Amino acid sequence: MAADKSILERLEAAIAARRQADPAASYVARLNEKGLDAILKKIGEEATETVIAAMAGERGGVVHETADLWFHCLVLLERQGIAVSEVLAELERREGRSGIEEKASRKESR
Amino acid sequence: MAADKSILERLEAAIAARRQADPAASYVARLNEKGLDAILKKIGEEATETVIAAMAGERGGVVHETADLWFHCLVLLERQGIAVSEVLAELERREGRSGIEEKASRKESR
Amino acid sequence: MAADKSILERLEAAIAARRQADPAASYVARLNEKGLDAILKKIGEEATETVIAAMAGERGGVVHETADLWFHCLVLLERQGIAVSEVLAELERREGRSGIEEKASRKESR
Amino acid sequence: MAADKSILERLEAAIAARRQADPAASYVARLNEKGLDAILKKIGEEATETVIAAMAGERGGVVHETADLWFHCLVLLERQGIAVSEVLAELERREGRSGIEEKASRKESR
Repeated sequence: MAADKSILERLEAAIAARRQADPAASYVARLNEKGLDAILKKIGEEATETVIAAMAGERGGVVHETADLWFHCLVLLERQGIAVSEVLAELERREGRSGIEEKASRKESR
Repeated sequence: MAADKSILERLEAAIAARRQADPAASYVARLNEKGLDAILKKIGEEATETVIAAMAGERGGVVHETADLWFHCLVLLERQGIAVSEVLAELERREGRSGIEEKASRKESR
Repeated sequence: MAADKSILERLEAAIAARRQADPAASYVARLNEKGLDAILKKIGEEATETVIAAMAGERGGVVHETADLWFHCLVLLERQGIAVSEVLAELERREGRSGIEEKASRKESR
Repeated sequence: MAADKSILERLEAAIAARRQADPAASYVARLNEKGLDAILKKIGEEATETVIAAMAGERGGVVHETADLWFHCLVLLERQGIAVSEVLAELERREGRSGIEEKASRKESR
Protein backbone atom coordinates (compact mmCIF):
# COMPACT_ATOMS: atom_id res chain seq x y z
CA MET A 1 0.00 0.00 0.00
CA ALA A 2 1.39 3.36 -1.01
CA ALA A 3 2.39 5.77 1.71
CA ASP A 4 0.36 8.56 0.18
CA LYS A 5 -2.92 6.75 0.63
CA SER A 6 -5.18 7.98 3.36
CA ILE A 7 -5.78 5.91 6.48
CA LEU A 8 -9.34 5.19 5.38
CA GLU A 9 -8.16 3.87 2.01
CA ARG A 10 -5.49 1.72 3.59
CA LEU A 11 -8.03 0.35 6.04
CA GLU A 12 -10.40 -0.31 3.13
CA ALA A 13 -7.68 -2.40 1.44
CA ALA A 14 -6.94 -4.25 4.68
CA ILE A 15 -10.64 -5.09 5.12
CA ALA A 16 -10.89 -6.38 1.54
CA ALA A 17 -7.88 -8.61 2.14
CA ARG A 18 -9.16 -9.85 5.49
CA ARG A 19 -12.54 -10.77 4.04
CA GLN A 20 -10.81 -13.58 2.12
CA ALA A 21 -9.27 -14.96 5.31
CA ASP A 22 -10.47 -17.89 7.37
CA PRO A 23 -13.50 -16.80 9.44
CA ALA A 24 -12.00 -18.65 12.37
CA ALA A 25 -9.00 -16.34 12.27
CA SER A 26 -10.48 -13.01 11.14
CA TYR A 27 -13.22 -10.84 12.63
CA VAL A 28 -13.88 -9.19 9.26
CA ALA A 29 -14.24 -12.58 7.54
CA ARG A 30 -16.45 -13.81 10.37
CA LEU A 31 -18.73 -10.75 10.23
CA ASN A 32 -19.09 -11.05 6.45
CA GLU A 33 -19.86 -14.74 6.76
CA LYS A 34 -22.69 -13.93 9.18
CA GLY A 35 -24.13 -11.67 6.50
CA LEU A 36 -25.22 -8.13 5.76
CA ASP A 37 -27.58 -8.14 8.76
CA ALA A 38 -24.70 -8.69 11.16
CA ILE A 39 -22.75 -5.73 9.73
CA LEU A 40 -25.80 -3.46 9.90
CA LYS A 41 -26.51 -4.51 13.48
CA LYS A 42 -22.99 -3.41 14.39
CA ILE A 43 -23.57 -0.01 12.74
CA GLY A 44 -26.73 0.49 14.81
CA GLU A 45 -24.94 -0.70 17.93
CA GLU A 46 -21.86 1.49 17.49
CA ALA A 47 -23.98 4.56 16.70
CA THR A 48 -25.82 3.99 19.99
CA GLU A 49 -22.52 3.59 21.83
CA THR A 50 -21.28 6.87 20.32
CA VAL A 51 -24.42 8.60 21.60
CA ILE A 52 -23.98 7.06 25.07
CA ALA A 53 -20.30 8.05 25.27
CA ALA A 54 -21.09 11.63 24.23
CA MET A 55 -23.92 11.93 26.76
CA ALA A 56 -21.59 10.54 29.46
CA GLY A 57 -19.01 13.17 28.54
CA GLU A 58 -16.39 10.48 27.95
CA ARG A 59 -13.96 12.08 25.52
CA GLY A 60 -11.93 8.92 24.95
CA GLY A 61 -15.13 6.92 24.58
CA VAL A 62 -16.34 9.24 21.80
CA VAL A 63 -13.05 8.73 19.94
CA HIS A 64 -13.20 4.94 20.29
CA GLU A 65 -16.89 4.56 19.47
CA THR A 66 -16.69 6.89 16.46
CA ALA A 67 -13.74 4.82 15.20
CA ASP A 68 -15.77 1.63 15.75
CA LEU A 69 -18.72 3.15 13.90
CA TRP A 70 -16.59 4.25 10.93
CA PHE A 71 -14.77 0.91 10.88
CA HIS A 72 -18.04 -0.98 10.51
CA CYS A 73 -19.18 1.50 7.83
CA LEU A 74 -15.98 0.60 5.94
CA VAL A 75 -16.83 -3.10 6.29
CA LEU A 76 -20.28 -2.35 4.84
CA LEU A 77 -18.90 -0.28 1.95
CA GLU A 78 -16.33 -2.96 1.07
CA ARG A 79 -18.99 -5.68 1.07
CA GLN A 80 -21.25 -3.58 -1.17
CA GLY A 81 -18.44 -2.83 -3.62
CA ILE A 82 -18.52 0.89 -2.76
CA ALA A 83 -15.15 2.68 -2.62
CA VAL A 84 -14.60 4.88 0.43
CA SER A 85 -13.52 7.54 -2.07
CA GLU A 86 -17.16 7.77 -3.19
CA VAL A 87 -18.24 8.70 0.34
CA LEU A 88 -15.35 11.16 0.64
CA ALA A 89 -16.29 12.73 -2.71
CA GLU A 90 -19.84 13.14 -1.44
CA LEU A 91 -18.48 14.83 1.70
CA GLU A 92 -16.21 17.03 -0.40
CA ARG A 93 -19.22 18.41 -2.22
CA ARG A 94 -20.43 19.64 1.16
CA GLU A 95 -17.16 21.24 2.17
CA GLY A 96 -17.78 24.86 1.25
CA ARG A 97 -20.53 26.95 2.72
CA SER A 98 -22.87 26.37 -0.16
CA GLY A 99 -22.31 22.63 -0.05
CA ILE A 100 -22.93 22.17 3.64
CA GLU A 101 -25.85 24.51 3.70
CA GLU A 102 -27.53 23.25 0.55
CA LYS A 103 -27.41 19.68 1.85
CA ALA A 104 -28.60 20.72 5.26
CA SER A 105 -31.56 22.59 3.86
CA ARG A 106 -32.54 19.59 1.82
CA LYS A 107 -32.41 17.33 4.87
CA GLU A 108 -34.31 19.71 7.11
CA SER A 109 -37.13 20.20 4.69
CA ARG A 110 -37.81 16.49 4.36
CA MET B 1 -6.76 25.35 3.66
CA ALA B 2 -3.75 23.49 2.33
CA ALA B 3 -4.24 21.15 -0.61
CA ASP B 4 -2.51 18.34 1.20
CA LYS B 5 -5.09 18.15 3.91
CA SER B 6 -7.52 15.31 3.75
CA ILE B 7 -11.17 15.91 2.91
CA LEU B 8 -12.17 15.05 6.46
CA GLU B 9 -9.77 17.61 7.90
CA ARG B 10 -10.91 20.30 5.48
CA LEU B 11 -14.53 19.53 6.36
CA GLU B 12 -13.60 19.69 10.04
CA ALA B 13 -12.22 23.20 9.52
CA ALA B 14 -15.28 24.25 7.55
CA ILE B 15 -17.56 23.00 10.32
CA ALA B 16 -15.57 24.91 12.97
CA ALA B 17 -15.90 28.08 10.90
CA ARG B 18 -19.60 27.57 10.21
CA ARG B 19 -20.34 27.06 13.91
CA GLN B 20 -19.53 30.75 14.46
CA ALA B 21 -22.01 31.81 11.77
CA ASP B 22 -25.53 33.12 12.23
CA PRO B 23 -27.84 30.19 13.05
CA ALA B 24 -30.36 31.68 10.66
CA ALA B 25 -27.88 31.25 7.82
CA SER B 26 -26.02 28.07 8.74
CA TYR B 27 -27.22 24.51 9.39
CA VAL B 28 -24.11 23.72 11.45
CA ALA B 29 -24.62 26.81 13.62
CA ARG B 30 -28.31 25.98 13.98
CA LEU B 31 -27.65 22.38 14.99
CA ASN B 32 -25.07 23.46 17.57
CA GLU B 33 -27.44 26.05 18.94
CA LYS B 34 -30.07 23.35 19.48
CA GLY B 35 -27.53 21.47 21.56
CA LEU B 36 -25.66 18.19 21.89
CA ASP B 37 -28.94 16.24 21.93
CA ALA B 38 -29.84 17.48 18.46
CA ILE B 39 -26.48 16.36 17.03
CA LEU B 40 -26.76 12.94 18.67
CA LYS B 41 -30.32 12.50 17.39
CA LYS B 42 -29.00 13.09 13.86
CA ILE B 43 -26.31 10.42 14.38
CA GLY B 44 -28.97 7.89 15.44
CA GLU B 45 -31.19 8.94 12.55
CA GLU B 46 -28.48 8.76 9.87
CA ALA B 47 -27.25 5.38 11.15
CA THR B 48 -30.82 4.07 10.77
CA GLU B 49 -31.04 5.54 7.26
CA THR B 50 -27.75 3.83 6.33
CA VAL B 51 -29.19 0.51 7.53
CA ILE B 52 -32.41 1.08 5.56
CA ALA B 53 -30.54 2.02 2.36
CA ALA B 54 -28.31 -1.06 2.63
CA MET B 55 -31.28 -3.37 3.22
CA ALA B 56 -33.06 -1.79 0.23
CA GLY B 57 -29.98 -2.46 -1.91
CA GLU B 58 -29.77 1.21 -2.84
CA ARG B 59 -26.10 1.73 -3.69
CA GLY B 60 -26.39 5.51 -4.05
CA GLY B 61 -28.41 5.68 -0.86
CA VAL B 62 -25.66 3.90 1.07
CA VAL B 63 -23.10 6.45 -0.22
CA HIS B 64 -25.31 9.42 0.71
CA GLU B 65 -26.42 8.14 4.10
CA THR B 66 -22.88 7.10 5.10
CA ALA B 67 -21.70 10.60 4.14
CA ASP B 68 -24.55 12.10 6.21
CA LEU B 69 -23.61 9.89 9.16
CA TRP B 70 -19.91 10.80 8.99
CA PHE B 71 -20.76 14.48 8.51
CA HIS B 72 -22.76 14.54 11.72
CA CYS B 73 -19.98 12.63 13.52
CA LEU B 74 -17.64 15.46 12.42
CA VAL B 75 -20.09 18.01 13.83
CA LEU B 76 -20.06 16.08 17.14
CA LEU B 77 -16.25 15.81 17.24
CA GLU B 78 -15.82 19.51 16.50
CA ARG B 79 -18.26 20.46 19.26
CA GLN B 80 -16.48 18.20 21.75
CA GLY B 81 -13.06 19.61 20.83
CA ILE B 82 -11.92 16.26 19.42
CA ALA B 83 -9.75 16.38 16.28
CA VAL B 84 -10.75 14.03 13.49
CA SER B 85 -7.08 13.03 13.42
CA GLU B 86 -7.64 11.34 16.79
CA VAL B 87 -10.32 9.09 15.30
CA LEU B 88 -8.13 8.41 12.26
CA ALA B 89 -5.20 7.53 14.54
CA GLU B 90 -7.44 5.10 16.39
CA LEU B 91 -8.44 3.54 13.05
CA GLU B 92 -4.80 3.39 11.97
CA ARG B 93 -4.01 1.23 14.97
CA ARG B 94 -6.49 -1.27 13.55
CA GLU B 95 -5.09 -1.27 10.03
CA GLY B 96 -2.89 -4.34 10.07
CA ARG B 97 -4.12 -7.83 10.73
CA SER B 98 -3.21 -7.76 14.37
CA GLY B 99 -4.86 -4.40 14.90
CA ILE B 100 -8.18 -5.26 13.31
CA GLU B 101 -8.33 -8.68 14.88
CA GLU B 102 -7.26 -7.64 18.35
CA LYS B 103 -9.91 -4.95 18.48
CA ALA B 104 -12.53 -7.26 17.07
CA SER B 105 -11.82 -9.93 19.64
CA ARG B 106 -12.13 -7.41 22.41
CA LYS B 107 -15.50 -6.21 21.11
CA GLU B 108 -16.86 -9.71 20.61
CA SER B 109 -15.96 -10.90 24.07
CA ARG B 110 -17.80 -8.03 25.75
CA MET C 1 -64.07 -0.16 21.15
CA ALA C 2 -64.80 -2.33 24.17
CA ALA C 3 -63.79 -1.06 27.58
CA ASP C 4 -62.02 -4.31 28.38
CA LYS C 5 -59.50 -3.92 25.61
CA SER C 6 -56.01 -2.91 26.60
CA ILE C 7 -54.67 0.52 25.76
CA LEU C 8 -52.31 -0.97 23.17
CA GLU C 9 -55.16 -2.76 21.42
CA ARG C 10 -57.34 0.35 21.41
CA LEU C 11 -54.45 2.36 20.00
CA GLU C 12 -53.90 -0.33 17.38
CA ALA C 13 -57.52 0.05 16.27
CA ALA C 14 -57.24 3.84 16.23
CA ILE C 15 -54.11 3.62 14.07
CA ALA C 16 -55.83 1.26 11.61
CA ALA C 17 -58.74 3.69 11.32
CA ARG C 18 -56.49 6.74 10.94
CA ARG C 19 -54.50 5.07 8.15
CA GLN C 20 -57.60 5.36 5.94
CA ALA C 21 -57.88 9.10 6.62
CA ASP C 22 -56.75 11.96 4.42
CA PRO C 23 -52.94 12.30 4.70
CA ALA C 24 -53.44 16.05 4.89
CA ALA C 25 -55.40 15.59 8.10
CA SER C 26 -53.73 12.60 9.76
CA TYR C 27 -50.13 12.00 10.85
CA VAL C 28 -50.63 8.22 10.71
CA ALA C 29 -52.00 8.41 7.16
CA ARG C 30 -49.18 10.77 6.17
CA LEU C 31 -46.47 8.51 7.63
CA ASN C 32 -47.92 5.46 5.88
CA GLU C 33 -48.11 7.35 2.62
CA LYS C 34 -44.41 8.18 2.87
CA GLY C 35 -43.75 4.46 3.14
CA LEU C 36 -42.19 1.78 5.31
CA ASP C 37 -38.84 3.62 5.31
CA ALA C 38 -40.39 6.65 7.00
CA ILE C 39 -41.89 4.52 9.78
CA LEU C 40 -38.59 2.69 10.36
CA LYS C 41 -36.66 5.97 10.45
CA LYS C 42 -38.97 7.12 13.24
CA ILE C 43 -38.28 3.90 15.19
CA GLY C 44 -34.53 4.51 14.94
CA GLU C 45 -35.02 8.14 15.87
CA GLU C 46 -37.25 7.51 18.88
CA ALA C 47 -34.95 4.75 20.17
CA THR C 48 -32.07 7.25 20.06
CA GLU C 49 -34.19 9.85 21.86
CA THR C 50 -35.03 7.29 24.57
CA VAL C 51 -31.30 6.63 25.04
CA ILE C 52 -30.55 10.37 25.22
CA ALA C 53 -33.35 11.04 27.75
CA ALA C 54 -32.17 8.16 29.96
CA MET C 55 -28.54 9.34 29.84
CA ALA C 56 -29.71 12.87 30.69
CA GLY C 57 -31.62 11.49 33.69
CA GLU C 58 -34.83 13.06 32.43
CA ARG C 59 -37.55 10.90 33.96
CA GLY C 60 -40.40 12.58 32.06
CA GLY C 61 -38.36 12.39 28.87
CA VAL C 62 -37.94 8.64 29.23
CA VAL C 63 -41.73 8.25 29.63
CA HIS C 64 -42.45 10.40 26.56
CA GLU C 65 -39.79 8.93 24.31
CA THR C 66 -40.66 5.34 25.24
CA ALA C 67 -44.30 6.13 24.42
CA ASP C 68 -43.18 7.65 21.08
CA LEU C 69 -41.08 4.55 20.36
CA TRP C 70 -43.91 2.14 21.16
CA PHE C 71 -46.39 4.25 19.20
CA HIS C 72 -44.27 4.02 16.06
CA CYS C 73 -43.81 0.28 16.64
CA LEU C 74 -47.63 0.03 16.66
CA VAL C 75 -47.76 1.95 13.36
CA LEU C 76 -45.25 -0.55 11.93
CA LEU C 77 -47.15 -3.59 13.21
CA GLU C 78 -50.46 -2.29 11.84
CA ARG C 79 -48.93 -1.65 8.42
CA GLN C 80 -47.42 -5.15 8.33
CA GLY C 81 -50.69 -6.78 9.35
CA ILE C 82 -49.25 -7.96 12.65
CA ALA C 83 -51.58 -7.84 15.69
CA VAL C 84 -50.10 -6.29 18.81
CA SER C 85 -51.42 -9.40 20.60
CA GLU C 86 -48.74 -11.40 18.76
CA VAL C 87 -45.99 -9.25 20.30
CA LEU C 88 -47.67 -9.47 23.72
CA ALA C 89 -47.93 -13.26 23.38
CA GLU C 90 -44.22 -13.38 22.59
CA LEU C 91 -43.53 -11.27 25.70
CA GLU C 92 -45.83 -13.50 27.76
CA ARG C 93 -43.68 -16.49 26.90
CA ARG C 94 -40.82 -14.66 28.58
CA GLU C 95 -42.73 -13.77 31.73
CA GLY C 96 -41.65 -16.54 34.07
CA ARG C 97 -38.09 -17.10 35.12
CA SER C 98 -37.49 -19.79 32.57
CA GLY C 99 -38.91 -17.71 29.76
CA ILE C 100 -36.89 -14.59 30.45
CA GLU C 101 -33.70 -16.48 31.10
CA GLU C 102 -34.01 -18.90 28.20
CA LYS C 103 -34.51 -16.03 25.77
CA ALA C 104 -31.71 -14.04 27.31
CA SER C 105 -29.27 -16.92 27.03
CA ARG C 106 -30.16 -17.35 23.40
CA LYS C 107 -29.54 -13.66 22.69
CA GLU C 108 -26.26 -13.53 24.58
CA SER C 109 -24.80 -16.53 22.85
CA ARG C 110 -25.43 -15.09 19.40
CA MET D 1 -49.73 -11.80 40.29
CA ALA D 2 -53.42 -11.13 39.66
CA ALA D 3 -54.96 -12.55 36.50
CA ASP D 4 -56.44 -9.20 35.57
CA LYS D 5 -53.06 -7.52 35.21
CA SER D 6 -51.84 -6.91 31.71
CA ILE D 7 -48.94 -8.87 30.28
CA LEU D 8 -46.75 -5.77 30.41
CA GLU D 9 -47.47 -5.24 34.09
CA ARG D 10 -46.83 -8.89 34.91
CA LEU D 11 -43.56 -8.75 33.00
CA GLU D 12 -42.67 -5.55 34.85
CA ALA D 13 -43.14 -7.37 38.17
CA ALA D 14 -41.12 -10.35 36.94
CA ILE D 15 -38.28 -8.04 35.90
CA ALA D 16 -38.28 -6.30 39.29
CA ALA D 17 -38.06 -9.69 41.02
CA ARG D 18 -35.34 -10.97 38.70
CA ARG D 19 -33.21 -7.88 39.29
CA GLN D 20 -32.66 -9.08 42.87
CA ALA D 21 -31.45 -12.47 41.68
CA ASP D 22 -27.89 -13.71 41.35
CA PRO D 23 -26.34 -12.17 38.21
CA ALA D 24 -24.85 -15.57 37.45
CA ALA D 25 -28.34 -17.01 37.17
CA SER D 26 -30.39 -14.15 35.74
CA TYR D 27 -30.02 -12.16 32.52
CA VAL D 28 -31.98 -9.23 33.99
CA ALA D 29 -29.75 -9.13 37.07
CA ARG D 30 -26.66 -9.43 34.89
CA LEU D 31 -27.76 -6.60 32.57
CA ASN D 32 -28.53 -4.33 35.53
CA GLU D 33 -25.18 -5.14 37.10
CA LYS D 34 -23.43 -4.04 33.89
CA GLY D 35 -25.19 -0.71 34.24
CA LEU D 36 -27.52 1.71 32.48
CA ASP D 37 -25.22 1.84 29.43
CA ALA D 38 -25.66 -1.87 28.81
CA ILE D 39 -29.47 -1.58 28.88
CA LEU D 40 -29.44 1.40 26.52
CA LYS D 41 -27.08 -0.39 24.12
CA LYS D 42 -29.61 -3.21 23.93
CA ILE D 43 -32.41 -0.73 23.12
CA GLY D 44 -30.35 0.69 20.24
CA GLU D 45 -29.46 -2.81 19.09
CA GLU D 46 -33.01 -4.18 19.20
CA ALA D 47 -34.40 -1.11 17.42
CA THR D 48 -31.88 -1.73 14.62
CA GLU D 49 -32.85 -5.40 14.48
CA THR D 50 -36.53 -4.43 14.22
CA VAL D 51 -35.67 -2.17 11.26
CA ILE D 52 -33.64 -4.94 9.59
CA ALA D 53 -36.40 -7.54 10.06
CA ALA D 54 -39.02 -5.17 8.63
CA MET D 55 -36.84 -4.32 5.62
CA ALA D 56 -36.22 -8.05 5.06
CA GLY D 57 -39.98 -8.64 5.12
CA GLU D 58 -39.59 -11.20 7.90
CA ARG D 59 -42.95 -11.19 9.65
CA GLY D 60 -41.86 -13.45 12.49
CA GLY D 61 -38.67 -11.45 12.86
CA VAL D 62 -40.64 -8.23 13.33
CA VAL D 63 -42.71 -9.88 16.09
CA HIS D 64 -39.61 -11.20 17.87
CA GLU D 65 -37.50 -8.06 17.55
CA THR D 66 -40.35 -5.77 18.63
CA ALA D 67 -40.84 -7.99 21.67
CA ASP D 68 -37.09 -7.81 22.37
CA LEU D 69 -37.19 -4.02 22.03
CA TRP D 70 -40.18 -3.63 24.36
CA PHE D 71 -38.66 -6.11 26.83
CA HIS D 72 -35.50 -4.03 27.13
CA CYS D 73 -37.59 -0.84 27.45
CA LEU D 74 -39.32 -2.54 30.41
CA VAL D 75 -35.92 -3.32 31.93
CA LEU D 76 -34.99 0.37 31.53
CA LEU D 77 -38.28 1.60 33.05
CA GLU D 78 -37.97 -0.75 36.02
CA ARG D 79 -34.40 0.38 36.70
CA GLN D 80 -35.44 4.04 36.52
CA GLY D 81 -38.38 3.51 38.86
CA ILE D 82 -40.88 4.33 36.13
CA ALA D 83 -44.10 2.28 36.08
CA VAL D 84 -45.11 0.89 32.69
CA SER D 85 -48.56 2.32 33.49
CA GLU D 86 -47.03 5.81 33.05
CA VAL D 87 -46.01 4.98 29.48
CA LEU D 88 -49.42 3.42 28.81
CA ALA D 89 -51.16 6.51 30.22
CA GLU D 90 -49.06 8.65 27.88
CA LEU D 91 -50.12 6.42 24.95
CA GLU D 92 -53.74 6.59 26.09
CA ARG D 93 -53.67 10.35 25.75
CA ARG D 94 -52.87 9.79 22.07
CA GLU D 95 -55.62 7.26 21.44
CA GLY D 96 -58.33 9.41 19.92
CA ARG D 97 -57.96 11.39 16.74
CA SER D 98 -57.11 14.58 18.48
CA GLY D 99 -54.55 12.89 20.69
CA ILE D 100 -52.68 11.12 17.94
CA GLU D 101 -52.78 14.06 15.60
CA GLU D 102 -51.90 16.71 18.16
CA LYS D 103 -48.85 14.77 19.25
CA ALA D 104 -47.84 14.06 15.69
CA SER D 105 -48.06 17.71 14.70
CA ARG D 106 -45.89 18.66 17.62
CA LYS D 107 -43.26 16.12 16.64
CA GLU D 108 -43.28 17.08 12.97
CA SER D 109 -42.84 20.75 13.63
CA ARG D 110 -39.71 20.19 15.71
